[in-house]
Amino acid sequence: MVGDIIDSNSAMIAQLLKQIGHNVCRKVTIADDFHLLVNEIKEMSQQADVLIINGGLGPTVDDLTAQALANAADLPIATHEKALSHLQAWGNKRNQQLTPANLKQAELPQGCDIIPNPIGSAVGFSLSLNNCQVYCTPGVPRELELMLNEQLIPELNKQNDNFLTIKRFSVFGIGESALQEFINQQIPQWPEAISLGFRAASPLIELKLTCTSKNDLPLLDILSKQLTTILQAHIIEEVQSKPRPLQQLLVELLISRKEVIATAESCTGGLIASLLTEVSGSSAAFEAGFVTYSNRMKERMVGVNHTTLEQHGAVSESVVKEMVEGAIRESGAKYAVAVSGIAGPTGGSVEKPVGTVWIAWGTASDVRTQKMLICGERKYFQNTVAYRTLDLIRRFILNDNTKPHYIKSLS
Amino acid sequence: MVGDIIDSNSAMIAQLLKQIGHNVCRKVTIADDFHLLVNEIKEMSQQADVLIINGGLGPTVDDLTAQALANAADLPIATHEKALSHLQAWGNKRNQQLTPANLKQAELPQGCDIIPNPIGSAVGFSLSLNNCQVYCTPGVPRELELMLNEQLIPELNKQNDNFLTIKRFSVFGIGESALQEFINQQIPQWPEAISLGFRAASPLIELKLTCTSKNDLPLLDILSKQLTTILQAHIIEEVQSKPRPLQQLLVELLISRKEVIATAESCTGGLIASLLTEVSGSSAAFEAGFVTYSNRMKERMVGVNHTTLEQHGAVSESVVKEMVEGAIRESGAKYAVAVSGIAGPTGGSVEKPVGTVWIAWGTASDVRTQKMLICGERKYFQNTVAYRTLDLIRRFILNDNTKPHYIKSLS
Repeated sequence: MVGDIIDSNSAMIAQLLKQIGHNVCRKVTIADDFHLLVNEIKEMSQQADVLIINGGLGPTVDDLTAQALANAADLPIATHEKALSHLQAWGNKRNQQLTPANLKQAELPQGCDIIPNPIGSAVGFSLSLNNCQVYCTPGVPRELELMLNEQLIPELNKQNDNFLTIKRFSVFGIGESALQEFINQQIPQWPEAISLGFRAASPLIELKLTCTSKNDLPLLDILSKQLTTILQAHIIEEVQSKPRPLQQLLVELLISRKEVIATAESCTGGLIASLLTEVSGSSAAFEAGFVTYSNRMKERMVGVNHTTLEQHGAVSESVVKEMVEGAIRESGAKYAVAVSGIAGPTGGSVEKPVGTVWIAWGTASDVRTQKMLICGERKYFQNTVAYRTLDLIRRFILNDNTKPHYIKSLS
Repeated sequence: MVGDIIDSNSAMIAQLLKQIGHNVCRKVTIADDFHLLVNEIKEMSQQADVLIINGGLGPTVDDLTAQALANAADLPIATHEKALSHLQAWGNKRNQQLTPANLKQAELPQGCDIIPNPIGSAVGFSLSLNNCQVYCTPGVPRELELMLNEQLIPELNKQNDNFLTIKRFSVFGIGESALQEFINQQIPQWPEAISLGFRAASPLIELKLTCTSKNDLPLLDILSKQLTTILQAHIIEEVQSKPRPLQQLLVELLISRKEVIATAESCTGGLIASLLTEVSGSSAAFEAGFVTYSNRMKERMVGVNHTTLEQHGAVSESVVKEMVEGAIRESGAKYAVAVSGIAGPTGGSVEKPVGTVWIAWGTASDVRTQKMLICGERKYFQNTVAYRTLDLIRRFILNDNTKPHYIKSLS
């Protein structure tokens, strides 16, 4: 059989461990071979204090973790009562009969401890082997993330007595290299005592300052303030537990103001609306989305003038302005955003090359517009347009007039 | 500094290598320490024929790969002319001045070969060390994927003389465990000569049959045919180079028939429209999307009757039916789909719990409807509704009346 036990969650595990001061000194993946897997577990448990095994907890024949750990620890496999009740509850909730394949997920090394999985069928499990605590975690990223954040990280942090303070900022609208370059220029003598890290959490970048000594805490504060000042419009927020996506910040802002938004999209084809409605509770903040993909529908759905389209073309300042006005008129929302551009790979011209986009945002009486040129693949173009639009309307509502780096005069 | 050199692309690399018969026998990640990284490169190059290093090619101080490989190979770092011209072309295309951080990406181990990167700033590079061919690849998944598919895999496959035939099918609408269980039941004596693998490529599952001996080719054919028969509606296609997403299949189908679709979405909030418009060329197949998030907008945008909403509620068969009819009427499209449901986590009732959704699809004269209960987080619910809707309309257009597993009678 083809074993699919390759871990793709390593970055998440290492990042979270690092936040509590645990360094991953070694990560090994052994593909395809049960005996290699057993040997690796034995060997690593002799070297490490903590071993996290990820993946291979699923119901299929590919999923070997429980059996491999049992072999490594010289334990029999047995039905674990708690895992079984978890599976039954999981099946009941979905009106699903458990198959023998499902039930395999309750067959675990005898005597192991269970780690709850609030959303998936596979529980995690843990046992001590060669004085190393071995944790087996599910491969589904969302399940792993919850298990790490809610169970493993708190447990490991309890055992942790290193001093560690971290400040994190989410930053939008500036590339990783431009960001580093800018910080180098503005704060050329960055002190060694505070380490500076970057983590891409597309479309945001998480900027992380780590301080490992109590004496350096004042320095950490100074640098945090400096960064906030020099990055201005690009700093979205200081991250508390988890960076909040732009769409969530906008929805929360609208809800707090009891105001409502509508969207009129051409080149993003509904992406902005779908980002907003990803957010739980968005029905209080989002009224309607007009995906006016053809010219005819721009006229019909949001009342763009036929002559405007003829004179300026669909990708023009006048058209996106009329789209915002029409979306507000048709929906009764206070705010609207509109985009029209050339996502590519075809459809460009010399005057309006692929990547050209006009964005408009505002209220019935105050519509702002901006032209941009965004180079990259279709999906990258659509995502970039959508997130910049969310950022522009968010700052408009906040009355924040600082100019982000991604706005350049092009025309 | 916090080093961010943790690889999260391992699954992709291993999967692609496996397709050409290369087994990854060992994958090691060393976090955070330059000297450990140098030592690991030395050690692994002594053990392996091919070493693929992923990540760390970026412009920031975190990016250590070039320097580490140079140290391991005892080579100086030098400006690579080809890498430099690539960077300049990359900057020109974006109207960007190259910063010193950008230019660092052309500083490579002397004498190495360049691996083109058609979309990103970081070129890959390669050199031979201890008779092991070392390839350094970018960490951005899309860039890595292109580099693997277009450069590395073809190159490695040339050196490969193992016999290997693989048949792959993309399967939709059945979970991994149900799929395995079903195959076990239907083909209980699965022969050892053909290995059966599963790969989740959400929302599709890729089913892979691998045959490693010429003598077993007839068996491979028999099993492929058997699988196609027993899985019927769930088999989307036999995969040639890359599984095509459902939205792409639908757009291609519509284009080939010169027909057009519209969408009317409530609980998916524009997701179906945005999936369709992800596909290049979709403007020939997609006319308009009505994101009617509030009841008022269901009436105003697609003419749902006020009394229908009052009598049946927004999540009802009558409402989605009227949404399809209205979307067709307003857009002039031949087909439309409509969804209305309770994405949660709030808004459910005893009669209509969170996860309830009504889907409608069809033409002006033939509208089909289906109720479903989809349990899971909000995002999971929205994705599942969107993809099932794409699958239902695709099979409607194909006049395929086989009943997929995910349709259960609930009312």
